[in-house]
Amino acid sequence: MQRIEGGVCAAKGFTANGVHCGIRKNKTKKDLSLIFSAVPASCAAVYTTNLVKGAPLAVNKAHLANGTAQAVICNSGNANTCNANGIEIAEQMSALAADALHIKADDVVVASTGVIGQPLDIEPIASGIPALVQGLKADGSSDAAEGIMTTDTIKKEVAVEFTLGGKTCRIGGIAKGSGMIHPNMATMLVFITTDAAIAPDMLQKALSGDIVNTFNMVSIDGDTSTNDMVVVLANGMAGNAPVREEGEDFSTFMCALNTVTVQLCRLLAGDGEGATKLLECKVTGAADLQTAKTVAKSVICSSLLKAAMFGADANWGRVLCAIGYSGAQVDVDKIDVAFRSAAGTIPVCENGAGVDFSEETAKTILLEKEIEILVELHSGSAAATAWGCDLTYDYVRINGDYRT
Amino acid sequence: MQRIEGGVCAAKGFTANGVHCGIRKNKTKKDLSLIFSAVPASCAAVYTTNLVKGAPLAVNKAHLANGTAQAVICNSGNANTCNANGIEIAEQMSALAADALHIKADDVVVASTGVIGQPLDIEPIASGIPALVQGLKADGSSDAAEGIMTTDTIKKEVAVEFTLGGKTCRIGGIAKGSGMIHPNMATMLVFITTDAAIAPDMLQKALSGDIVNTFNMVSIDGDTSTNDMVVVLANGMAGNAPVREEGEDFSTFMCALNTVTVQLCRLLAGDGEGATKLLECKVTGAADLQTAKTVAKSVICSSLLKAAMFGADANWGRVLCAIGYSGAQVDVDKIDVAFRSAAGTIPVCENGAGVDFSEETAKTILLEKEIEILVELHSGSAAATAWGCDLTYDYVRINGDYRT
Repeated sequence: MQRIEGGVCAAKGFTANGVHCGIRKNKTKKDLSLIFSAVPASCAAVYTTNLVKGAPLAVNKAHLANGTAQAVICNSGNANTCNANGIEIAEQMSALAADALHIKADDVVVASTGVIGQPLDIEPIASGIPALVQGLKADGSSDAAEGIMTTDTIKKEVAVEFTLGGKTCRIGGIAKGSGMIHPNMATMLVFITTDAAIAPDMLQKALSGDIVNTFNMVSIDGDTSTNDMVVVLANGMAGNAPVREEGEDFSTFMCALNTVTVQLCRLLAGDGEGATKLLECKVTGAADLQTAKTVAKSVICSSLLKAAMFGADANWGRVLCAIGYSGAQVDVDKIDVAFRSAAGTIPVCENGAGVDFSEETAKTILLEKEIEILVELHSGSAAATAWGCDLTYDYVRINGDYRT
Repeated sequence: MQRIEGGVCAAKGFTANGVHCGIRKNKTKKDLSLIFSAVPASCAAVYTTNLVKGAPLAVNKAHLANGTAQAVICNSGNANTCNANGIEIAEQMSALAADALHIKADDVVVASTGVIGQPLDIEPIASGIPALVQGLKADGSSDAAEGIMTTDTIKKEVAVEFTLGGKTCRIGGIAKGSGMIHPNMATMLVFITTDAAIAPDMLQKALSGDIVNTFNMVSIDGDTSTNDMVVVLANGMAGNAPVREEGEDFSTFMCALNTVTVQLCRLLAGDGEGATKLLECKVTGAADLQTAKTVAKSVICSSLLKAAMFGADANWGRVLCAIGYSGAQVDVDKIDVAFRSAAGTIPVCENGAGVDFSEETAKTILLEKEIEILVELHSGSAAATAWGCDLTYDYVRINGDYRT
């Protein structure tokens, strides 16, 4: 398996585009994106567990009942959530896209991201769709990735090439994240495409099995979005024998999918709102997987630890504290903690108590852009990783006045 | 019932003091406090549910097995948590205090607050105790309240006078809060004294019944401390017929206790680390109490809403979002939300969708120091309140480099 360029257009038969249609006032910001498959594709999706759900989610659930889709349309600048006419607008969006693409409306996946509770006007979307469709191109992944950004500072694209049943397959994705990120089933808007042939039920199985260890292990601010959604389209154009059951091919596909999703998780977490650092909490030696995951997520969610990491302060007591209130049953007197980065590794806690360490060395390690928080529980062999970011002045600035 | 001055010394027979003994480097900061009852008192306590617990908690559980105590000693600047010799140090602290006060060591409640995981030296405490005991005074509540502060910016003292069985009784308390505040059984260090006569088991019942609606409904940063503790001492010197069972007197006592604890909650939340505003989320119309509490606490814990309140931004979509992911079963299409402060009230959401409102008026309301977030669920008659604060640049500053 190897990393390649191309994002959602890496796989055969996929084109994409992104334009400015006028939802955002800033004309230099793209606000409408489209991903299109030359042929109908198997489609699987997972959505937020928030009871308050964006209108597009209800529309997609209906559209994807048959496990097939051919296009994804997504706007930024408005979440189309908590709006009296939200469903109607989401249906109009997909109908307009379907007409322009000459496909069926229920083969369109629709998504929105931005402010909650402000009516979404269909007008700019309707007038933007012709140019959006006309501009579909094989190197359009970056434009599409740009069109779904809100407070994101970098485009998030990943793709890999792998072999399935003797055929070269590709899988790639784009994502937007930044704030209101504490996925519980899925994270805010991830679109993945592949030319592998895989039946819709197996695609759903692969996606549902993957996200519990990837997107559901990311937290930027503890706020589970109303619009979280991960969608995978598999158009089969690689020509492999379709994956219809568990086995070697399914495992290979899961592995390729996981390579893409883990990297997207790292991109999402590292570009959290206001973030200056990517944090990865790696828990090992847990009695079981759930314990490992609970501990890792609790550490990554601690506001106090996140602020300490911003300040490059090796305040490991906050790691212990977050483990202690996580709800997981652990023997706190066995816990070891270390911080690791490109600058080195420093053990700071052994058997639940502090060890002497050089504050200077710790500072050097924590000043890096990617920090690993290593937690060894010495109680078994289960392991888990969670991804997050530091808590900074900019998070407060961005969210102190997001709407204006 | 009326508010009076005096804090933990308001009730008959209680004296207190606070000194600088040398745990903190800054000599102008008091770091050791003592509360003393002239006679042995009924004593009830609740502690953090964090599995990582400060050493003083284990010592107190042993000391309070008999329901009696006569003094509370507490240092700031070091939490005595995750230290190999923590229990030993906590036992030395109480033994030294007991010797100086000529009481039994197991009648001393011991507490520590500050950094986790740095060994606590007994030396400054041992050398500070003589002056601490010598200076005990009837107007010493403020000094004691000061000695337990960490990043707190104001002393937190409350007292009320009430009548029980024809006798005038008083109850008062001091608290420290600020950061790592998301109580789950109790909050970081609250000491309450009363001269009411009440049996230890009834005192514990009153305290345990109260905190689920008061301290457990406060969150400053979602981090449940390792050292949370609420202790109540009742020395009976008011001369009322001892409260030994449920009934009118017990209800009256509960009511007085609640008046003190609610006010302490407001003081704790309003003085959260870096906070500029007190937030109170008042949920009404819930199907049951647990739903009301879950919703209120979820709203008050949302980093996004907290940042919006700092920016005086009426971003009610974040209130809906936090209700939606709270885990409570609510009908989101029935929810009304309004913001209220001394400057007025503004409805912003009705039936789960936005209503037209003046952004200017909303700004004026949200620029006040105390903001109420009113959530009406229209599904029953249960209600709950949760207390929190805004998320600010100063929270990041304080916690980005707390140890140095």
